[in-house]
Amino acid sequence: DGIHFATKDGNFTAGINGRMQVDSQTNFNNNVAPATGANTSNDLNDGVTLRRARLGIEGTFFKNTDYKFEYDFTRGNGTTAAGVTDAFIRYNFSKPFSVKFGAFKEPFSLEEATSNRYITFIERNMITNAFVDDLNTYKVGIGANYSAERWQVATSLQTEPVGNNGASNSATFNGTNPNGGVNRSGGSGDTNWEVNGRVSGLPWMESKTKFWHVGASGSYINVNNNYLANGNFSNGGISFARGLDNNVDRTNILNTGNLTSGTRGTATWREADHLTRFGAETAVVYGPFSVQSEYIATNVSGKGYSGDALDGFYAYGTYFLTGESRAYKAKTGAWDRIKPNHNFDMKGGWGAWELAAGYDSIDLNSGPIHGGKAQTAKFGINWYPNSHVRVMADYVHALDINTFDVANARSKAFNNSDLDVIETRVQLDW
Amino acid sequence: DGIHFATKDGNFTAGINGRMQVDSQTNFNNNVAPATGANTSNDLNDGVTLRRARLGIEGTFFKNTDYKFEYDFTRGNGTTAAGVTDAFIRYNFSKPFSVKFGAFKEPFSLEEATSNRYITFIERNMITNAFVDDLNTYKVGIGANYSAERWQVATSLQTEPVGNNGASNSATFNGTNPNGGVNRSGGSGDTNWEVNGRVSGLPWMESKTKFWHVGASGSYINVNNNYLANGNFSNGGISFARGLDNNVDRTNILNTGNLTSGTRGTATWREADHLTRFGAETAVVYGPFSVQSEYIATNVSGKGYSGDALDGFYAYGTYFLTGESRAYKAKTGAWDRIKPNHNFDMKGGWGAWELAAGYDSIDLNSGPIHGGKAQTAKFGINWYPNSHVRVMADYVHALDINTFDVANARSKAFNNSDLDVIETRVQLDW
Amino acid sequence: DGIHFATKDGNFTAGINGRMQVDSQTNFNNNVAPATGANTSNDLNDGVTLRRARLGIEGTFFKNTDYKFEYDFTRGNGTTAAGVTDAFIRYNFSKPFSVKFGAFKEPFSLEEATSNRYITFIERNMITNAFVDDLNTYKVGIGANYSAERWQVATSLQTEPVGNNGASNSATFNGTNPNGGVNRSGGSGDTNWEVNGRVSGLPWMESKTKFWHVGASGSYINVNNNYLANGNFSNGGISFARGLDNNVDRTNILNTGNLTSGTRGTATWREADHLTRFGAETAVVYGPFSVQSEYIATNVSGKGYSGDALDGFYAYGTYFLTGESRAYKAKTGAWDRIKPNHNFDMKGGWGAWELAAGYDSIDLNSGPIHGGKAQTAKFGINWYPNSHVRVMADYVHALDINTFDVANARSKAFNNSDLDVIETRVQLDW
Repeated sequence: DGIHFATKDGNFTAGINGRMQVDSQTNFNNNVAPATGANTSNDLNDGVTLRRARLGIEGTFFKNTDYKFEYDFTRGNGTTAAGVTDAFIRYNFSKPFSVKFGAFKEPFSLEEATSNRYITFIERNMITNAFVDDLNTYKVGIGANYSAERWQVATSLQTEPVGNNGASNSATFNGTNPNGGVNRSGGSGDTNWEVNGRVSGLPWMESKTKFWHVGASGSYINVNNNYLANGNFSNGGISFARGLDNNVDRTNILNTGNLTSGTRGTATWREADHLTRFGAETAVVYGPFSVQSEYIATNVSGKGYSGDALDGFYAYGTYFLTGESRAYKAKTGAWDRIKPNHNFDMKGGWGAWELAAGYDSIDLNSGPIHGGKAQTAKFGINWYPNSHVRVMADYVHALDINTFDVANARSKAFNNSDLDVIETRVQLDW
Repeated sequence: DGIHFATKDGNFTAGINGRMQVDSQTNFNNNVAPATGANTSNDLNDGVTLRRARLGIEGTFFKNTDYKFEYDFTRGNGTTAAGVTDAFIRYNFSKPFSVKFGAFKEPFSLEEATSNRYITFIERNMITNAFVDDLNTYKVGIGANYSAERWQVATSLQTEPVGNNGASNSATFNGTNPNGGVNRSGGSGDTNWEVNGRVSGLPWMESKTKFWHVGASGSYINVNNNYLANGNFSNGGISFARGLDNNVDRTNILNTGNLTSGTRGTATWREADHLTRFGAETAVVYGPFSVQSEYIATNVSGKGYSGDALDGFYAYGTYFLTGESRAYKAKTGAWDRIKPNHNFDMKGGWGAWELAAGYDSIDLNSGPIHGGKAQTAKFGINWYPNSHVRVMADYVHALDINTFDVANARSKAFNNSDLDVIETRVQLDW
Repeated sequence: DGIHFATKDGNFTAGINGRMQVDSQTNFNNNVAPATGANTSNDLNDGVTLRRARLGIEGTFFKNTDYKFEYDFTRGNGTTAAGVTDAFIRYNFSKPFSVKFGAFKEPFSLEEATSNRYITFIERNMITNAFVDDLNTYKVGIGANYSAERWQVATSLQTEPVGNNGASNSATFNGTNPNGGVNRSGGSGDTNWEVNGRVSGLPWMESKTKFWHVGASGSYINVNNNYLANGNFSNGGISFARGLDNNVDRTNILNTGNLTSGTRGTATWREADHLTRFGAETAVVYGPFSVQSEYIATNVSGKGYSGDALDGFYAYGTYFLTGESRAYKAKTGAWDRIKPNHNFDMKGGWGAWELAAGYDSIDLNSGPIHGGKAQTAKFGINWYPNSHVRVMADYVHALDINTFDVANARSKAFNNSDLDVIETRVQLDW
């Protein structure tokens, strides 16, 4: 795909990749509590956005070393560096084994491992976003990958994202770092660190279009908490917050607030010291049909917590009206690019058409944590005029939103509300 | 021009374009009111700037789909995304008809349709900036274009720019959107939207160097206004503000202030509900001579307004000492790249030399609106050593500045002042 | 190196260059004063960072004109434009003589003239950073260069950096310009300006691997100082501040504070009106051995100052275990890319290995200026698996930190502390 160059001796190669996603969101706000006093309306707003605009360069040096640098020009309101996604140098010891240094995605979850160019719905499911992607999954560290024909294992020791995302993250390691995600000046404490691992494979594979995928992920996250000399909590900690599957108005409907708060040594002091995350995933492709499901749990440990578990799951099915199958890459244990059987043209080519329906559930309440819970049903239709363009439309219906115990007033306003959201996307990538 | 690539089957092409503009501004401040108390001087400041530094990538997929992404690395103090200019995906149904999705320039005005690489003076005229460009003309939406040999028509339904420009816009949809131009979180209301159209053509064309251009533009803009639950104006609205044709110190000499203000339902409440813009344009090229003129009016409607009209016009002439003619592209109804008859070299090649003189007038006073008014005379000399480099010098003389009724104190200080500005530019583009 | 393109007639060429540096820092804080009250810990923090991630494009037009644009995606917390490093257009009158316009590095100091890809230790020495690089050495202006076979001279008239670096600069022209380094709106005063020159050459050169380099730099900097109408200092001025050679936690251990302060005309008023900088440099390469040393002094003049001199020097030696020599380019008077005798591979190739040891000293105390002083010893080991990848490890030991008289409380906490820092870097560039 795309543009590729190489020097004559083959010692240096480079390719330029890119993607653009133009999105819209229209909301039907029913039974959202009205605003009072000096507050603006609680309703979600309608609009359009350039959801992602990324350019990247990747290639190899002297055959065994490769690199990737990718930048998202629409990321965040924070520092410029927050736009960096992948930025790593990798040494390939042998075909299946490699080690990389730099910023790269955590190995965790099937939906997270899948590029946003290839996910089925316009946005990832709530658990994938709340527990993995919203924390900014591109973090600086060291990773090792091993892959065989039908399975792969990925592990990493990672720290923090490259830049400070400002308010763009709905959940984040809170205010740890006013100077950018990885600049430690100004009393931002030693970096967060985490150990991650994911293994996936195909226990059954009849052909490229008939197989069964299973996988599991695990992660330990050490949370950075900083206190003033007088014992008051200063910065750090962690929060989990989420809208439904909305892409333009990203108001947090669910919101735990910062899990670290109070003054060290007092009765009301709580500290999220570390998190453990677990994920289980499965998918089956049978010709034009597919089903996919994941469960993710995050346990919070520390002062005032006893491994309190936030969790959720999703399940959905897809069907290609035009006969294609979902494309899969065993090396990464993730979904890949769809090639229509017939490209769209004015002479009767239809491209590929895909239908999808799913159920999505998340629970951010546990013990002393009151982040709320929600379930949605969603329906999607995807049109692939050719292998590099995709037009999508999703309908998301809130089955239940329970935010009665959430401290945040805006979140609380959505308790028992009836939200419906229609989203669209026009995407090009290469 | 520039760097272009294609895959062997021609299904994918890409090209990289870029521009750099290094500017200087020297001011002669006469009769500007002195600052008092805890204010800094009202005088304009001298300096240099990297006015624009843009890189873009554009190309085609499977012949009929094309795309463009361009980023300006010197834009704004706002979010990173504010640097995005063009970011669209386009489908070409047939040679003259195309539809595009994403961020692109509003079709409005000859001078705005012309790339800043090809405009005659260093900065566009005051009406083009105040009523079109300062609002950030690159907005997300859908556009349709049709062109024939000698004329074209362009229409669009657009919303807001991609990112939040921060303080870099002299006029803006005010503070609508602290989270970036198109992220609707945080009570920023449903997006602004607008419908635009422009038609242009050549009623007379004897040759490529002798022709008469005419055109007209129209636009309806729905303004986003958000109130607190208690009725106080919260954010949104719109203001118009402008310096003279200055490029380094962009202090607003004219300034309407936000046209929405006050508390809903009270006597002092004003709300700019929608704007209608009209433009008329003409130009004649006759060998090395050209003349060009435009008139633009913006009518403000809503609570407290009755279609109050802000308007202005400009007219200028140019002459190539070295015999070239201004280059024109009928497909876009806009000026194009100049190719000197003889490139500059050490063996007697002079490149192309162009002289220009013009008159520029704007009136931001109307009914309850007190933004001030100004007229300038300007003179320019442009040197094109080759087709991709341009060296420019402009002298701008304020004929009249009337800001007596403007509320903003800094603006008021320029009432009846005698400003002269000398600007220079060194430009490279491909 | 890298990717290069040219049109068939050779009138246009372009190349894409890039670099990535992934760094870590681990600190051993001993005898740092503990924080009190509502302050966070004074200790330096550990972490990793993407130190630099740059992409650039450079090339030529019509043979004689060339250009370069480079952007650092990890720079600063300020405006997007602050990421611009080089952005210039250059005309080459003849082989050795050229003139450039735009943003480029000041010609000052051997270590500053050397790309950060080729410097010996992970960070430049304290004097190079404090007196040259921390002020952001990439400034907009005009430069002229002349080079012969064994020597070169570079001069420039420069102003300010392209964007506003926010808090990322440890020393800066303070708050001159809330609107970006070169946008003069908002009472930021006329731009700073400076005249710089550097001459360097090889008085002795037996071969490419046996030579003696000497050089000298000089600079006059006019500092922008802005006052309110009531005489109070508003913005501008200059400060010098520095950590040790740390790359992740860049806390300023030395800090002069702003050298302009107070109210115009009062007894406590101080104003840094202009600076003069002087530098002397030398280096010898003798096969695998090299030594290098520089002295830099900055004199502060103006109200309350009498040419008070801040200064320092460094000296270090290097040795290639694998027999290579340091690479030098006479045209720029700077160090160049190392090519290992044998690239690293699994069949016994070791790449190149280099050891380094140095002494680094800076004194920011002089007359009324109390910025503190420090000396460090440092040791480094560099591994070059091939010509485009480098793995580095440095150990920096504070010999003496004297910040007893520094006003800044955080800086003062490091007085007589015993700091040790271990840093690592993985670098790829082309």
